Amino acid sequence: MQYVHFSPDGQQRLLGLLSGATIHSLGAIRLEDLLAAGVDLTAFAKAHRATGNEYAAEAVTYLPPLTRPGKIICVGLNYADHTGESPYEQPTYPTIFPRFNSSLMGHGAPMIRPRVSDSLDFEGELAVILGSGGRHIPKARALECVAGYSIFNDGSVREYQFKSPQWTIGKNFDGTGAFGPTLVTPDSLPPGGVGLHLETRLNGRVVQSANTSDMIYDVATLISILSEAVTLEPGDVIVTGTPAGIGWAREPKLIMRHGDVCEVAIEGLGVLRNLVQDEAA
Amino acid sequence: MQYVHFSPDGQQRLLGLLSGATIHSLGAIRLEDLLAAGVDLTAFAKAHRATGNEYAAEAVTYLPPLTRPGKIICVGLNYADHTGESPYEQPTYPTIFPRFNSSLMGHGAPMIRPRVSDSLDFEGELAVILGSGGRHIPKARALECVAGYSIFNDGSVREYQFKSPQWTIGKNFDGTGAFGPTLVTPDSLPPGGVGLHLETRLNGRVVQSANTSDMIYDVATLISILSEAVTLEPGDVIVTGTPAGIGWAREPKLIMRHGDVCEVAIEGLGVLRNLVQDEAA
Repeated sequence: MQYVHFSPDGQQRLLGLLSGATIHSLGAIRLEDLLAAGVDLTAFAKAHRATGNEYAAEAVTYLPPLTRPGKIICVGLNYADHTGESPYEQPTYPTIFPRFNSSLMGHGAPMIRPRVSDSLDFEGELAVILGSGGRHIPKARALECVAGYSIFNDGSVREYQFKSPQWTIGKNFDGTGAFGPTLVTPDSLPPGGVGLHLETRLNGRVVQSANTSDMIYDVATLISILSEAVTLEPGDVIVTGTPAGIGWAREPKLIMRHGDVCEVAIEGLGVLRNLVQDEAA
Repeated sequence: MQYVHFSPDGQQRLLGLLSGATIHSLGAIRLEDLLAAGVDLTAFAKAHRATGNEYAAEAVTYLPPLTRPGKIICVGLNYADHTGESPYEQPTYPTIFPRFNSSLMGHGAPMIRPRVSDSLDFEGELAVILGSGGRHIPKARALECVAGYSIFNDGSVREYQFKSPQWTIGKNFDGTGAFGPTLVTPDSLPPGGVGLHLETRLNGRVVQSANTSDMIYDVATLISILSEAVTLEPGDVIVTGTPAGIGWAREPKLIMRHGDVCEVAIEGLGVLRNLVQDEAA
């Protein structure tokens, strides 16, 4: 089942189920609210998929699957080949940083290259949306918490990422966290989202190519480790890290510029596509 | 004006105005909602302070001034003497890390020493609550965004803070982010909360003693710089950093243990007091 948040007219904000080239509207429901209410998204989709208006998927505006998650927990250095191209040694614990909601946008929305820096870079990643949570979740039960998977482009303003010892600001510029287009329920995918090909393309050129099986900390491990410290909650999002190939590690550096098209494709999850646009003066 | 969120009975969640030893209830309103609606807290307090039930301030349970802020933006290395006791050089840009809402608790609630680590440390800090926001806020107008000030104890699980290059997990254990007791409106304080004595006491012993004027990036500068990257929103919280004296930098290390009492006092803002308690087995 593939959920999408979309707007047919730039005004209404609807939830729908994507089937081929058609979106079946479920009305003005929010995924956040379904998750907070403990609704099973697979069962809900089965019960409601035949109802509601239909829209052509190519004609609507996409919003992120969740607009204001309680937490967006991002994982750095989670692919060995990416750590290898970074200035860091591989840590023996997940490297965690945040996204604030103010940085999110959907599939098809512009990714904003800010005025203050010419160092906007891509990072294609698998995102996990939690349907339940708690503390001290054993790894063997961790995947029961997953409500769905999605795609994230963790757009990074590299100069700001490295202005201080903490990456947070470089990871939180407005309009740099692309999320979507869909939330895919776990029944449609291998357990834990393992074995999925992940590819980032800039203007059609493949710049990252990896497999989610190459994560150092897989989805179940991340949920279990994070819950040793933090209460995980329905609607929290875990963004699982990017593989090698980022622009900033290349010689010469590959920096995204106005007019570029960046796509992240993950097997079974579709394609997240965003056009890079300069911040308005 | 001093706002408090409190519960008289462990059930109701009320907003009130603290005056001396008495809380005047304003009813089941949330500060989050007042801020989101653009309400001026000083004017609102003046209009409503004579109404509602009265409660003895010492008899109620305190909640954080905001329970689920949109963003909690913490600033590291913002006092030169603290940077000097850290392993870091002073950066030329604010060092930003997040708090997730799940780590917050109020005045009087236990600060939880987690099972997984014996390295819980204190950090007394001035917190700023925004009433308005936006992007590219000039420094000269930044203080207009401030709805109030409060106290924060940025309880840090040091081993986890340094397990990877990013501090986020060590700063986000459940029950480590003490916030309150009150939100004090800016009319009661010097502009930008400058010149306030800040003191942290562990079991009555002064362990941090500083003045908010010693911040490297003052409140107006932080708001202006952050807004170059991020849209600031009503209800966002900026936690402005801690001065020297943390337990982890001492020889021998001073680690908080079950039964310890940690207090952070800031001139004009009161005292934030929490009892350290081991996580339940």
